[in-house]
Amino acid sequence: MSLITPRTLKGFRDYVPSSMMPRERLIETAKRVYRSYGFSPIDTPALEYLEVLQGKGSDETDRQLYQFVDHGGRAVGLRFDLTVPLARFVAQHASELGMPFKRYHVATVWRGENTQRGRYREFMQCDFDTIGTQSVVADIETALVIHDLMLAIGFDQFTICVNNRLVLNGLLEKLGLAAQATAILRALDKLAKIGAENVLEEMQQQAQATRAQAQQVLQLAALRGTADEVLQQLDTILAGSANGAAGAESLRQVLSGVRAAGVPDTRVKLDLSIARGLDYYTGTIFETYLGPLPTIGSVCSGGRYDNLAGLFTKQHLPGIGASLGLDRLLAAMEELGMVEKVATPASVLLTYFAPDHLPAYLQLAAQLRAAGLRVELYPEAKRLGQQLKYADQRGFRVALVAGDDEWARRTCQVKDLRTGESQEVNLDPDAEPVAQAIHAILSSDLPAPEEH
Amino acid sequence: MSLITPRTLKGFRDYVPSSMMPRERLIETAKRVYRSYGFSPIDTPALEYLEVLQGKGSDETDRQLYQFVDHGGRAVGLRFDLTVPLARFVAQHASELGMPFKRYHVATVWRGENTQRGRYREFMQCDFDTIGTQSVVADIETALVIHDLMLAIGFDQFTICVNNRLVLNGLLEKLGLAAQATAILRALDKLAKIGAENVLEEMQQQAQATRAQAQQVLQLAALRGTADEVLQQLDTILAGSANGAAGAESLRQVLSGVRAAGVPDTRVKLDLSIARGLDYYTGTIFETYLGPLPTIGSVCSGGRYDNLAGLFTKQHLPGIGASLGLDRLLAAMEELGMVEKVATPASVLLTYFAPDHLPAYLQLAAQLRAAGLRVELYPEAKRLGQQLKYADQRGFRVALVAGDDEWARRTCQVKDLRTGESQEVNLDPDAEPVAQAIHAILSSDLPAPEEH
Repeated sequence: MSLITPRTLKGFRDYVPSSMMPRERLIETAKRVYRSYGFSPIDTPALEYLEVLQGKGSDETDRQLYQFVDHGGRAVGLRFDLTVPLARFVAQHASELGMPFKRYHVATVWRGENTQRGRYREFMQCDFDTIGTQSVVADIETALVIHDLMLAIGFDQFTICVNNRLVLNGLLEKLGLAAQATAILRALDKLAKIGAENVLEEMQQQAQATRAQAQQVLQLAALRGTADEVLQQLDTILAGSANGAAGAESLRQVLSGVRAAGVPDTRVKLDLSIARGLDYYTGTIFETYLGPLPTIGSVCSGGRYDNLAGLFTKQHLPGIGASLGLDRLLAAMEELGMVEKVATPASVLLTYFAPDHLPAYLQLAAQLRAAGLRVELYPEAKRLGQQLKYADQRGFRVALVAGDDEWARRTCQVKDLRTGESQEVNLDPDAEPVAQAIHAILSSDLPAPEEH
Repeated sequence: MSLITPRTLKGFRDYVPSSMMPRERLIETAKRVYRSYGFSPIDTPALEYLEVLQGKGSDETDRQLYQFVDHGGRAVGLRFDLTVPLARFVAQHASELGMPFKRYHVATVWRGENTQRGRYREFMQCDFDTIGTQSVVADIETALVIHDLMLAIGFDQFTICVNNRLVLNGLLEKLGLAAQATAILRALDKLAKIGAENVLEEMQQQAQATRAQAQQVLQLAALRGTADEVLQQLDTILAGSANGAAGAESLRQVLSGVRAAGVPDTRVKLDLSIARGLDYYTGTIFETYLGPLPTIGSVCSGGRYDNLAGLFTKQHLPGIGASLGLDRLLAAMEELGMVEKVATPASVLLTYFAPDHLPAYLQLAAQLRAAGLRVELYPEAKRLGQQLKYADQRGFRVALVAGDDEWARRTCQVKDLRTGESQEVNLDPDAEPVAQAIHAILSSDLPAPEEH
């Protein structure tokens, strides 16, 4: 029989332990922070009726949709994001869920992307949303969640940029450009990428703005100074526009709210230049940039939308949420040396080379696990050098060595694999001295390694 | 525009918070235990080349496969288990991974099952395996992982039944039935379901055994007594069969190994009647039954196989592993009242009804989160009764109430939502007295609720 070539589809990838562990840790950190604000987990099927998914994103997401006919002759598709399933979910279960409804959803989505742009066809999204309230408290908490999340992941230099769609809408109303808002937004969204001159050109060509009008839009985006100064200037620029005034007032409340929660001004900033290309945002919008790596783009973005589930229900459901850019964030952490290169979740390898003492090895491993340590017992009585090489390749922190002599003396060698130093430690009572010696080595590392 | 009916596909389901939270907790518990033994996480794509999946399970899994042609004209399918992807993964990355390789994989799989049997078409598997070693240490640790897992989930009455395929094979060799082993196994596997008489019938009809031969197989399965007694009887029954003797010796080592690790004999039992229908097991096999609910079937099963990835590589990769039956376990936990009916991960609802004091509410919530509590701030200044009803419906444990009077006095009301009792507690310094009052309420519950 000929062998089948083991391979993954183009645009899909395997995660080996050294790449899966930081992913898993990041996802768990995100969940922990979401939960600390009362967001609840939900899950929805990967497959949905095609009519639920189709025509809900853009022409591009329609083209990229993985779709087929199932065993029962139903037209089905794989979800391309978590927002459309959320809309369907909330419409379907609204009475059971009650409002406000705060949910997080960490799950895989699929898009038949062009892989030449370095995109993957399967990736994970990590969203949180507050549905069913227009209160600015939800806007403030969205910023706070992003803030706590970035800190919990291990960043201390980052900026959460806040803007409000109503501010720009207010200006466009005053300029008589309200009908072209979408085209203006699309152009403005490219500011960082293509520069002011090209944005001016695009606004004139795509949005039929005059050069003077386009310049006023860019001037608004370029307003600088403290938040208070900028907001004061806004009052003048937007005078007479109810929408503009509402947007400015909301921004004022968001900024003072996060300050009240103890967040330094350096971390949450008013930035009138962020636009978020997506049509459906209607109020506050967020983007998050890493201080040491701003060019990687926003790692957590989102905003307020007016009506989540209008295609599925007559119930009006406003909301606000954001999405953590898992892949981008992991790439940044790797680039910044924040990801330890290990291929095992255990810190201790108990080497094994005196099979007559197997019960003693098993007992020691059990005692150390009971003391909260993660311990792998090497399964074969190979040469010690080979086992230590294995320990080194996987990234264990500590190796334990016990042969006939040590078992006779009721001791074991505790080897610090970073320094190479060994110490002989008593096993009794209950392997406690060994556990203490290991804990001492682990706690000498900063930050302290996570144990179960 | 007419609305789209919000609905899920037949055989698929949504998880609302009250059903998703216990699932998420169970999965996290499993991961924690797997990690404590040095199992590493991996992930593989949901979609694979069809040739990777097809013909790898049974005719039934082939029929149930979700398959289609993708944008690039490739025949693809959704994975129907995690074992076939593991085989492909290990063959593809063997040199990078090194052996032994211990992995866990928690992921969704899809099968176009007949839903009339109460089966779902999308479900989650939760597997762990040790690849690349034939050492009995891996067999022992597989039993220990199952044991620690059941304890960590909250069960103390359960039985891990252990058998070894070689024992039965040894007997079949002696009876001259080795060639019909598969048909004998299939019949034996139904013993609990259809009873001895029907199994005898099936062995005669499907495996061409004589009634006397079939009776000898059933006598082996029926051996009772302490493990030592049964193993002693086995030595006589299997005398002369090398396979049989190897199976009995392995069982002896597994049983004494788990005992050495401190597991009581009542929890790991030799049971010569378990057979596990799957052809590919070749050595130790496991099934796990809940003491209070044995009829629900095995909640964690697995065993040793000879060659994982023979279809993908010439490298010989023996292994052993098991799979946690997530849905079955959750159903059991629900039936046994082990699942608290809550719809929020937060224990504290901070009610909100004096908008002028929004900064104070935000500060209090931030301080309590910093003290390790999960706190939801209600986003709208609705009537207190309405907010307390919300707290009750979601299952919050504590509500905090602060209006103009309390803020003026720098206090807040801490309300135990189970007893209905309230106490007025000082906010200063840093909301510490409030955090202490909440912790006191939470720690009065048994078991202690998990906080971040």
